[in-house]
Amino acid sequence: MQPIRYGMIGGGQGAFIGGVHRTAAAIAGNWQLVAGALSATPEKARASGREIGLSEDRTYGSWAEMIEREAALPEDVRIEAVAIVTPNHMHAPPAIAAMEAGFDVIIDKPLAESLAHAQAIADAAARTGRRIGVTQTYTGYSLVKLARKMVAGGELGALRRVMVKYTQDWLSRSEDLVDNKQAEWRVDPARSGEAGAFGDIGTHAANLVEFITGERIAELCAELTMLEGRQIDDDGAAMFRLSGGGKGTLTASQVCVGDANDLAISIYCDEAGLHWRQVEPNKLVVGRRDKPVETWHDGGNRAYLPSDILALHRTPGGHPEGYLEAFANIYRAFGDHLRGAPAPEGEPGFATMDDALHSMRFISACLESSRQGAVWVNL
Amino acid sequence: MQPIRYGMIGGGQGAFIGGVHRTAAAIAGNWQLVAGALSATPEKARASGREIGLSEDRTYGSWAEMIEREAALPEDVRIEAVAIVTPNHMHAPPAIAAMEAGFDVIIDKPLAESLAHAQAIADAAARTGRRIGVTQTYTGYSLVKLARKMVAGGELGALRRVMVKYTQDWLSRSEDLVDNKQAEWRVDPARSGEAGAFGDIGTHAANLVEFITGERIAELCAELTMLEGRQIDDDGAAMFRLSGGGKGTLTASQVCVGDANDLAISIYCDEAGLHWRQVEPNKLVVGRRDKPVETWHDGGNRAYLPSDILALHRTPGGHPEGYLEAFANIYRAFGDHLRGAPAPEGEPGFATMDDALHSMRFISACLESSRQGAVWVNL
Amino acid sequence: MQPIRYGMIGGGQGAFIGGVHRTAAAIAGNWQLVAGALSATPEKARASGREIGLSEDRTYGSWAEMIEREAALPEDVRIEAVAIVTPNHMHAPPAIAAMEAGFDVIIDKPLAESLAHAQAIADAAARTGRRIGVTQTYTGYSLVKLARKMVAGGELGALRRVMVKYTQDWLSRSEDLVDNKQAEWRVDPARSGEAGAFGDIGTHAANLVEFITGERIAELCAELTMLEGRQIDDDGAAMFRLSGGGKGTLTASQVCVGDANDLAISIYCDEAGLHWRQVEPNKLVVGRRDKPVETWHDGGNRAYLPSDILALHRTPGGHPEGYLEAFANIYRAFGDHLRGAPAPEGEPGFATMDDALHSMRFISACLESSRQGAVWVNL
Amino acid sequence: MQPIRYGMIGGGQGAFIGGVHRTAAAIAGNWQLVAGALSATPEKARASGREIGLSEDRTYGSWAEMIEREAALPEDVRIEAVAIVTPNHMHAPPAIAAMEAGFDVIIDKPLAESLAHAQAIADAAARTGRRIGVTQTYTGYSLVKLARKMVAGGELGALRRVMVKYTQDWLSRSEDLVDNKQAEWRVDPARSGEAGAFGDIGTHAANLVEFITGERIAELCAELTMLEGRQIDDDGAAMFRLSGGGKGTLTASQVCVGDANDLAISIYCDEAGLHWRQVEPNKLVVGRRDKPVETWHDGGNRAYLPSDILALHRTPGGHPEGYLEAFANIYRAFGDHLRGAPAPEGEPGFATMDDALHSMRFISACLESSRQGAVWVNL
Repeated sequence: MQPIRYGMIGGGQGAFIGGVHRTAAAIAGNWQLVAGALSATPEKARASGREIGLSEDRTYGSWAEMIEREAALPEDVRIEAVAIVTPNHMHAPPAIAAMEAGFDVIIDKPLAESLAHAQAIADAAARTGRRIGVTQTYTGYSLVKLARKMVAGGELGALRRVMVKYTQDWLSRSEDLVDNKQAEWRVDPARSGEAGAFGDIGTHAANLVEFITGERIAELCAELTMLEGRQIDDDGAAMFRLSGGGKGTLTASQVCVGDANDLAISIYCDEAGLHWRQVEPNKLVVGRRDKPVETWHDGGNRAYLPSDILALHRTPGGHPEGYLEAFANIYRAFGDHLRGAPAPEGEPGFATMDDALHSMRFISACLESSRQGAVWVNL
Repeated sequence: MQPIRYGMIGGGQGAFIGGVHRTAAAIAGNWQLVAGALSATPEKARASGREIGLSEDRTYGSWAEMIEREAALPEDVRIEAVAIVTPNHMHAPPAIAAMEAGFDVIIDKPLAESLAHAQAIADAAARTGRRIGVTQTYTGYSLVKLARKMVAGGELGALRRVMVKYTQDWLSRSEDLVDNKQAEWRVDPARSGEAGAFGDIGTHAANLVEFITGERIAELCAELTMLEGRQIDDDGAAMFRLSGGGKGTLTASQVCVGDANDLAISIYCDEAGLHWRQVEPNKLVVGRRDKPVETWHDGGNRAYLPSDILALHRTPGGHPEGYLEAFANIYRAFGDHLRGAPAPEGEPGFATMDDALHSMRFISACLESSRQGAVWVNL
Repeated sequence: MQPIRYGMIGGGQGAFIGGVHRTAAAIAGNWQLVAGALSATPEKARASGREIGLSEDRTYGSWAEMIEREAALPEDVRIEAVAIVTPNHMHAPPAIAAMEAGFDVIIDKPLAESLAHAQAIADAAARTGRRIGVTQTYTGYSLVKLARKMVAGGELGALRRVMVKYTQDWLSRSEDLVDNKQAEWRVDPARSGEAGAFGDIGTHAANLVEFITGERIAELCAELTMLEGRQIDDDGAAMFRLSGGGKGTLTASQVCVGDANDLAISIYCDEAGLHWRQVEPNKLVVGRRDKPVETWHDGGNRAYLPSDILALHRTPGGHPEGYLEAFANIYRAFGDHLRGAPAPEGEPGFATMDDALHSMRFISACLESSRQGAVWVNL
Repeated sequence: MQPIRYGMIGGGQGAFIGGVHRTAAAIAGNWQLVAGALSATPEKARASGREIGLSEDRTYGSWAEMIEREAALPEDVRIEAVAIVTPNHMHAPPAIAAMEAGFDVIIDKPLAESLAHAQAIADAAARTGRRIGVTQTYTGYSLVKLARKMVAGGELGALRRVMVKYTQDWLSRSEDLVDNKQAEWRVDPARSGEAGAFGDIGTHAANLVEFITGERIAELCAELTMLEGRQIDDDGAAMFRLSGGGKGTLTASQVCVGDANDLAISIYCDEAGLHWRQVEPNKLVVGRRDKPVETWHDGGNRAYLPSDILALHRTPGGHPEGYLEAFANIYRAFGDHLRGAPAPEGEPGFATMDDALHSMRFISACLESSRQGAVWVNL
């Protein structure tokens, strides 16, 4: 099977997530980077292209140029898809243009900086028939998929309670916004959207809940806060009710000192509790009442794992895989989907438009609830 | 220093917490059990007394009899204090009677099954001048005290966010209420009070937050739930605001499958995050931004610990102490207090009437908030 | 059942292990301390007695006096047993005298400072018919007993390999021998015996291997070392062959910086690997090939545990027990044995003369092997 | 900087380590796979080439053909280096031929199946002046490099004791050799060499010791064993003495049930103990006597890390990296070396001929010691 030829929009020098996408695509093995519009500044775009080995004639000064000129290339040469890794407010324009030019799209989360723009992307996808996948990274981990499978399998019984937290500390000091390219746009409402931490990482936490439980957050009450002098939330918590009746709490913060990147979830059902923590992603803890606690480890020679979970791991058990491999799983699945592979059982392997729009509604609901003093709001 | 002669009320055959109190007192070393009214059934009271080696003439058939007859004994023979380990609704009558007869009181938490009865106990203490200590067990752990000391010391800066959970699974099945002496009274509003899990263990979680932070929960919104067919809560969660401005979430449940007894807390301040979990009580994790994560271990030869924390541990570092030793620390401190030892710096070493009444208000507020649909309520 | 009346030899002010024995006996509940010869210095013996509440007329100035005068008391008043907690070289004389006077003996490990003295104790026990139990503390932990039970049950298959380590750091600096009562005698050949760390803690590691596997260390090669300026080993390692054919490595050290008291063992059989670590004693990890890793937790409501293991724990699951409770299990079992309880299935609950003599041979073999350049030696 | 054009020898369908090398090279970013002789069976070689997207004209039927035909291509087109991922006995012939044809070599460990062949490779490297790097994977982890740096920095003082283990379970059953391509050659003396587990993973453990301590294993006594019916070791242990005077124990086994791939090391120096475990590679535990235990986490925003360690991590703190990224670090370093980058301070970033020959001597010494009954042998 030929790899998918793709062009990247964003991800030039100084960016973080673009390099992650490129490496993930390389690990996945079914993608080939052939073009790029890596920066809004043409000169920087070219320098960035050289650095990562793009050929000069396919290193473009703007995404508009890339889309136009690639569309003009012969079918077996031109890109088939674009990867969009720009700040949130720059997602919708290139995504819509790319789809209208006939390209499929893989796009970083959240879908856009506002629900309106997110909806515009979804509309364009529906209109053009192009396929679009959203990289909700943490659902790419094999044991997160195993957790989903266990819940969906039904033998754990009904869902009762969820606790999820996603805490970081890189914005814990006032000065963290000075001279920090990663921070700057994330805390600027015009570029990141009205939500800060809740848009950036709260959505990951909410998405993880929905992915594993197979339900939607139906109602929530949230209280978002921020350090003095900031314009958008850097911290907050919510209580929520799931569509199926389970309840939960969610904390998301970028000012929780000492936690580099701590996404952790506990899911309790009638017959078992599941626990997963991103910093030790190769294990899933399952607590039961009448048996010892089980720790499920991933890896190729752990034959007790379901075969579709085993198939995700690239190395034998005990050879840890991490964030980049989880990301690669998403690229792999979306690439297979573009190549016409049959849909995997259970879930497609990447976040869909529906997932992404629901994430946007989650953000809106959190903002609305918090503004009104943390009252209950329907999604 | 002579040990405190005490009599126990409750704690006969089939009870759980009475044996814990007796063992804790024995470990503490400054208490001596000399009398008991161990059961409301006289025959069972006597059998229970024999089993634990009480002399027959001081094994009483009722607490009223014990208080009356002990008070008539010579001053250097009679009990000096009573330990009350009955179900919640049977706390107030013996506590008040004992204080009126001139005895000091150590009493299991929560103070009573209702705020009114709790207040009556407090009033009696004020009226009689007797001393009363409440066993909020988890604040007896040396590293919980260290956490409090760190926060109080000020070098961690202001408190930002708290996450606390206390989850058990012993009531996770409907049939758990059948033929289970421990469960029976705890889920009966008449004996346990109107709150179930929130009275039994939610209070521990709330107390732990207040103990470590040195603040009070000022406002909360809570949603309590229960399995079908039950009358009082067995599960729930709350968001809360502390008196000093910090915010937090609290989950308490007796139906979270796989968790035997999992009390865990994270406290984030401006400069560090503190993490403690009761199932591994001999370590306190401190996360900072500019240093490796620190794990503080307790034990006699870990000379970096403050001397008052070191003094609590009975064995050298690496010899784990547990629940019974934490409980013993409370007995030790209250016994020292009764013997006139100078008040330790920081906190008395046992929960006071003020702490206990606040816990009762916490329970009431959770119930009220939940009944109104999880709205915000002031304590 | 009446508690065993006992007198303590050693364990006065400034001692460590004596207090541990007394607390363990109190937790066990079936022992009662009624007499003591707590120090070789009569004045200190008396002061120590007062401090722990012994009556003055049964606080003796020497162990010889205690044995003589207690033997003269009425049968239902005098002590029934002695607990010997003196330095190793002072074990044999009082143990033998006590047995000859008709008292049973519970004694700290190792049995004596030399194999000859240990044998003399064993001979006296055989001659007098008195009962003697040795406190190999770590075999008192309930989950160590569970590990033994699993191996003995046979379903794990044959034993393959063992890794055991016992590391401490309290002697890691030259100055640690200055003004340190605990260290002083332990590093003095005349009082501790010719072995240092290997006598003090290497024996615990070896005993743990033999206890869990049900086999004896048959051959070993060991290399003991020490910091410059010391006379006896403070560190070393051994390879060994078990009587049943399994093999293993053992490390024991009191100069391994950062490890307060780290006794950890891994036992691999044909069908599973067992892992236990004393600093987290309430869990036993069981690895298998075709199943998730199991973590067995102790505690009263973990109903999957065998009933005899459950019976050892004093509190429900998730309420950690520690070193003192493990010690108490040994006192409990030896006390029951003295009261004529039927022998428990599997093992008596305390180390026997046979175990203790084998430990002495282990020490001798390590010393001999090491002196000859770490050659293989039979035990 | 242009990526290194390389050809792969071995690593066709059904192989494991070849895919790991290719992914590692892709993550590293400074390598480009342009040719391959992926199997000794020409047809399979071609099918394997197609599967990974090699162009047909550079997919060769044998390594000899590849070397000959690549050497004939223009300098700016032909490969610059070969990656050798064949079974051990097929390392020397292509390595020597490649160097003689002017190509640099990156080669999987151990260098060869025998010391003689390993020496022949080293001789060829010296004779031709070509550069050769060996992939001792586990030294590619950033925190292993940090451990080395800490020891080398001197502030930890002299090395005292090492404990290292590398345990797997994939050969724990007799039937594990049937129909298992990975197992088959590893347990065949003709292809793997005379050592089994000690050649395959014992060398990793020994290399890790030497890498972190900066010393060589100078003497050892080892006892290797195997399940009935096997020809070469699948399990064993050793005691060793390091060149600088420290001592240690090493266990390596492929029959330790429940351990998928557990490489763990503890290194004790005068002032600290270091602990690292491959299954949780993003943390390094440092124990000290006068401070809390430190856990050093890797990742881009943990600013307390030395800059050269920080530079190795591709993602911010808390985004775990794993085995493939460690492998990529080795490719990255060797690629930079080939492109003439200045040698990094401390160590080159890949195992050298000297390291690799010492590993071969380690294997020989273990075999010799074991055959003689586990006597001490000099390396």
